[in-house]
Amino acid sequence: MSFNTFGQMFRVTTWGESHGPALGATVDGCPPAVRIDAAELQHWLDRRKPGQNRFTTQRQEPDQVKILSGTFEGLSTGTPIQLLIDNTDQRSKDYGDIAKSFRPGHADLTYHQKYGLRDYRGGGRSSARETAARVAAGGVARAALAVLAPEIRITGYMVQIGPHQIDRTRIDPAEIERNPFWCPDAQAAETWGAYLDDLRKTHNSVGAVVELVASGAPPGLGAPVYGKLDSDLAAAMMSINAVKAVEIGEGMAAAALTGSENADEIRMGPEGPVFLSNHAGGILGGISTGQDVVLRFAVKPTSSILTPRRTITSSGEEVDLITKGRHDPCVGIRAVPVGEAMMACVLLDHILRDRGQTAGIRGEIG
Amino acid sequence: MSFNTFGQMFRVTTWGESHGPALGATVDGCPPAVRIDAAELQHWLDRRKPGQNRFTTQRQEPDQVKILSGTFEGLSTGTPIQLLIDNTDQRSKDYGDIAKSFRPGHADLTYHQKYGLRDYRGGGRSSARETAARVAAGGVARAALAVLAPEIRITGYMVQIGPHQIDRTRIDPAEIERNPFWCPDAQAAETWGAYLDDLRKTHNSVGAVVELVASGAPPGLGAPVYGKLDSDLAAAMMSINAVKAVEIGEGMAAAALTGSENADEIRMGPEGPVFLSNHAGGILGGISTGQDVVLRFAVKPTSSILTPRRTITSSGEEVDLITKGRHDPCVGIRAVPVGEAMMACVLLDHILRDRGQTAGIRGEIG
Amino acid sequence: MSFNTFGQMFRVTTWGESHGPALGATVDGCPPAVRIDAAELQHWLDRRKPGQNRFTTQRQEPDQVKILSGTFEGLSTGTPIQLLIDNTDQRSKDYGDIAKSFRPGHADLTYHQKYGLRDYRGGGRSSARETAARVAAGGVARAALAVLAPEIRITGYMVQIGPHQIDRTRIDPAEIERNPFWCPDAQAAETWGAYLDDLRKTHNSVGAVVELVASGAPPGLGAPVYGKLDSDLAAAMMSINAVKAVEIGEGMAAAALTGSENADEIRMGPEGPVFLSNHAGGILGGISTGQDVVLRFAVKPTSSILTPRRTITSSGEEVDLITKGRHDPCVGIRAVPVGEAMMACVLLDHILRDRGQTAGIRGEIG
Amino acid sequence: MSFNTFGQMFRVTTWGESHGPALGATVDGCPPAVRIDAAELQHWLDRRKPGQNRFTTQRQEPDQVKILSGTFEGLSTGTPIQLLIDNTDQRSKDYGDIAKSFRPGHADLTYHQKYGLRDYRGGGRSSARETAARVAAGGVARAALAVLAPEIRITGYMVQIGPHQIDRTRIDPAEIERNPFWCPDAQAAETWGAYLDDLRKTHNSVGAVVELVASGAPPGLGAPVYGKLDSDLAAAMMSINAVKAVEIGEGMAAAALTGSENADEIRMGPEGPVFLSNHAGGILGGISTGQDVVLRFAVKPTSSILTPRRTITSSGEEVDLITKGRHDPCVGIRAVPVGEAMMACVLLDHILRDRGQTAGIRGEIG
Repeated sequence: MSFNTFGQMFRVTTWGESHGPALGATVDGCPPAVRIDAAELQHWLDRRKPGQNRFTTQRQEPDQVKILSGTFEGLSTGTPIQLLIDNTDQRSKDYGDIAKSFRPGHADLTYHQKYGLRDYRGGGRSSARETAARVAAGGVARAALAVLAPEIRITGYMVQIGPHQIDRTRIDPAEIERNPFWCPDAQAAETWGAYLDDLRKTHNSVGAVVELVASGAPPGLGAPVYGKLDSDLAAAMMSINAVKAVEIGEGMAAAALTGSENADEIRMGPEGPVFLSNHAGGILGGISTGQDVVLRFAVKPTSSILTPRRTITSSGEEVDLITKGRHDPCVGIRAVPVGEAMMACVLLDHILRDRGQTAGIRGEIG
Repeated sequence: MSFNTFGQMFRVTTWGESHGPALGATVDGCPPAVRIDAAELQHWLDRRKPGQNRFTTQRQEPDQVKILSGTFEGLSTGTPIQLLIDNTDQRSKDYGDIAKSFRPGHADLTYHQKYGLRDYRGGGRSSARETAARVAAGGVARAALAVLAPEIRITGYMVQIGPHQIDRTRIDPAEIERNPFWCPDAQAAETWGAYLDDLRKTHNSVGAVVELVASGAPPGLGAPVYGKLDSDLAAAMMSINAVKAVEIGEGMAAAALTGSENADEIRMGPEGPVFLSNHAGGILGGISTGQDVVLRFAVKPTSSILTPRRTITSSGEEVDLITKGRHDPCVGIRAVPVGEAMMACVLLDHILRDRGQTAGIRGEIG
Repeated sequence: MSFNTFGQMFRVTTWGESHGPALGATVDGCPPAVRIDAAELQHWLDRRKPGQNRFTTQRQEPDQVKILSGTFEGLSTGTPIQLLIDNTDQRSKDYGDIAKSFRPGHADLTYHQKYGLRDYRGGGRSSARETAARVAAGGVARAALAVLAPEIRITGYMVQIGPHQIDRTRIDPAEIERNPFWCPDAQAAETWGAYLDDLRKTHNSVGAVVELVASGAPPGLGAPVYGKLDSDLAAAMMSINAVKAVEIGEGMAAAALTGSENADEIRMGPEGPVFLSNHAGGILGGISTGQDVVLRFAVKPTSSILTPRRTITSSGEEVDLITKGRHDPCVGIRAVPVGEAMMACVLLDHILRDRGQTAGIRGEIG
Repeated sequence: MSFNTFGQMFRVTTWGESHGPALGATVDGCPPAVRIDAAELQHWLDRRKPGQNRFTTQRQEPDQVKILSGTFEGLSTGTPIQLLIDNTDQRSKDYGDIAKSFRPGHADLTYHQKYGLRDYRGGGRSSARETAARVAAGGVARAALAVLAPEIRITGYMVQIGPHQIDRTRIDPAEIERNPFWCPDAQAAETWGAYLDDLRKTHNSVGAVVELVASGAPPGLGAPVYGKLDSDLAAAMMSINAVKAVEIGEGMAAAALTGSENADEIRMGPEGPVFLSNHAGGILGGISTGQDVVLRFAVKPTSSILTPRRTITSSGEEVDLITKGRHDPCVGIRAVPVGEAMMACVLLDHILRDRGQTAGIRGEIG
């Protein structure tokens, strides 16, 4: 739980720095007899991999994951699963300038203040590379979910880049995998492409909003009052680099709604309660309702940009800093598979926790 | 961490239901020799107390807090502090209707589904009354902060009720305590009053946005990557009943900013780094910068309203439900002291955690 | 987990001091729909209650437990159960001498050193009274075990007081409840009575060994490598005041055995594996085998005695201290129900944790 | 805490199986700026390394540790330290027999029962090889202790093998490193050598008792009532493979002592309290006194022996099993550096936890 561990029954500890020899995730608490396949984990990692198109960092990392423990003949044994990813493309010289200067908007300064020293190479632990370990762990979570709750589908996509939002009337799920932005609105994807091309020319970056939907999640996940599903989802998303806000269901917009507008009315369906709307985002009182769990998170613009910004050095000198290197113009794009991975981890953790306390039995209705 | 406990070094476990004999908080990990005064805790509880004006529930609860353990001659001993608040105004008959029906937008349904039974009286554990225990625990946290980090000031206020936002050019901190809405904009407070009077007449409720600012927080609080200060703040706020979104600094608006706009430039001041803006909300890489820590959270409208809504009963019958009783038309108002309390708990917890790992020593600059 | 909380899924936080207004336990994670009866909890508390015979402290405490939360119509709701016991017989004047002096062998000194202050009245938090809260929590655990694993029987008894051990050939389970020592050997009980009468006359106290047996525990409880059942049992027992050693199965005697003597051979019975001996105490590799779980713990002699001992005061003065008051000549006696309670809590916690990870499914044999 | 993690502020998660590609420890919470040297970690690992003399397993493992993260220019950065040890000498064919049969006294059966499958190669996760990861992590803890509490010295040694105890009047600390048994009594070491040679000829194994002493530990470590130093030490030692009992100070012998014998009297020394004896083993009320912390643990005999034992197979067949392979005749010998490592981890964790709550300030005396 503390510092670099996330989750309670399904526990993920990530480790490693951007330019160290390797990084990875120590995954504890996975149910036994789950098929854990390196190739399948690789599938998820490949979605997050840098350098796949001109809109993400040009760092070339194969992000090849190795499973060092916790499986036997392809099945999880219930013991810790160590997932290791070697760092291969470490051009440390690219980062020479930031050894002494603190990039504005970056963790350089706060790591220095807190620890008195920092691994400045590529941002060290605060690098977006850390999220590769999350995606690998999320792959394990997905494999377990496929056994324990096979109806669950987790889908992430982008709904906003800079000032440009998608038009929700144009959403086409099939579109998500067709463009480099995980954008469900083909027209928005075109706008975004042109917009990002301009941004790169002006040496700038931009923020984004990612939406995640988990369909098929059973009711009863989450617990009052500090074990709420939304509380853990919020912590999980906010722990991703550069995330500045998390919304569940209506999110901030709930503030402007009246009670009669916001409450999702309920009718009786053939298999239980049916909701007439989903303002709640699938969670009531911290517990899943069985509806789609819907959340959004905002990712701030990459702080490493080629536009000079005023800052200071560790010796207190005032300088203007340009951050060279291979950075994402919109780091939010690669946050989509990361958010999906975190959601998978949270859902699995809550399934295990719920099963521990209640055996997964649900109160009857009707 | 699990279920009803929040925090790691400073740990708060709340317990109790709306209509049980009492509720309270078990507070563990408080530093020794902190003056814990029942009267001072009462001060904070009185700010949250229902029935203080026509805009909050008319339930009359003195919310008198008793300190049952963990102090000796007025000082904390380092052992668990038990804070107990008796429930006195329990008109259970008001809630007869909801024994069988699930209020739309409420936790009635999910508690039933998860646990197979529920204390339906006043919402049981999911009642807003649970937050009284948080405020009491927050009072202990504030007392400890007064010793460990006396510069910290935590201020909560409302910035939006329904469609009506404050005008930030009119903010006057002194105004916050002068109106029943913790509103820093006198003109907005008037608008809100009229708006809420109308709402009550139409038997409706509405959402709100609360903003919290912690000034004077030292740099270095929070830790990579799952112990981030913003991650814990997000979890803390999202754990409050009816909260649907949490923003740090620019929050959702960060998505629309470019990197050059968003990064807070740094200059050297007489006592260390000085930031030229605070888009980050005082947190970089999950660690406090020494700037104001700024967050907002959205509270959904109270789901218990007098307007009939379609729902079902536990026997599967479809009904139209009016929720009688004494409910807040805008539960966001009373969330202000609750949010402040949670922020105090999180900051104290992180001060203790940081002190454990680093002894609170900060890296030098200049 | 931290400081005053024990357990992971079934979590018990005890609070309160010997001479404060009350003490109790906050019990989180109990499965729902378990019948929790104050009278049944009282049954367990009465077994630990002081003043029941001349061999325990003459403090008169009814130890009446109140259930303040977490149940509805007699059933657990899955939310925290607050158990409160008022302190009624607080003759603080008895303890005047120890306000400044540190009793040798007592926690007076270490509390003072660690916290800089202490509640000296009756030992404050380090008093044996704290164990009343454990017994109450253990009663909740037993009620849950009665539903989840009804075959489990937990039996505690004494096997040694001072130099006098029981004769294992004379063990008669029915005898345990017939004498004031929970002694299964009637003849040993007589010896102990005479021995303790002598001790009291010489103003002395003595240690003891308690044995606990859980029969009917299912195989599969506990997990490698830091979640071992024996590791948690050891921590649980060692957390009881005055306990100085914990043995599982052969315990210390295992050191003198050879591998061929110690390994419990296995044959196939009609319902699965059958062991030909139980040197292991029912645990292999940290996981229960289905055999009786057997442990012993040693309780040191009460340090509060009427025999003068050399010590110092908080001002550094050297004094000879006699501890007046109402102390147990052999505090080990009342440790029997406390040990049983801790064992119940550990077993339930591990059943929930196991169920969370594995759904309680067991690998087939044959 | 859960499953494979130990500690709260200083957290060690070990991972890996006997015959997988590697094993290791993920160490989180290390204070920053501690010099972590692979060569120094290697020093501790070499002490535990198999195959060093005829009294330990002949498996040849270099146990070369790699530091994959968490350090920069030789210093800890405050982020997770990944310690990886490759498995190199995996003669899986040696273990063919145990793929289907359950070794009596071994975790084979319980792993199968709990998880439904197991990595039978070399015992998988239950192998003594797992303790290499503990020793590596203990090396990090020692490095941090050298900075935070440089007076602490942790010394482990054997006091009993089979029926042969050391003679405490002959203890010579210098002797510990001179014989293959970490035996402080040269004469006992000779006896043990002859005894073990005989045992090996008869294809048997034997148990042992290890004693650990931490001198120089500051007062104030540990906390009531579930965060007791002795409670965590007991859990730590009991988590080591094959350990069946843990004693603090007098341990089981405390049962036979009277209060006047057992209580350690206190006088005033030039630098604070001085104890006239140490029956308590340096811990009172769960908190260190500043005296030597003394504990012992019993290690059962290796269950893998060449003497045939009756057992069953996974298909329920009854067989006689001889465990071939390269096993320790007295696994207790190699438990000495493992116990030391665990003690280092526990002490560091408690220093950090204490510093978090109290800032390490101690109550004054005199």
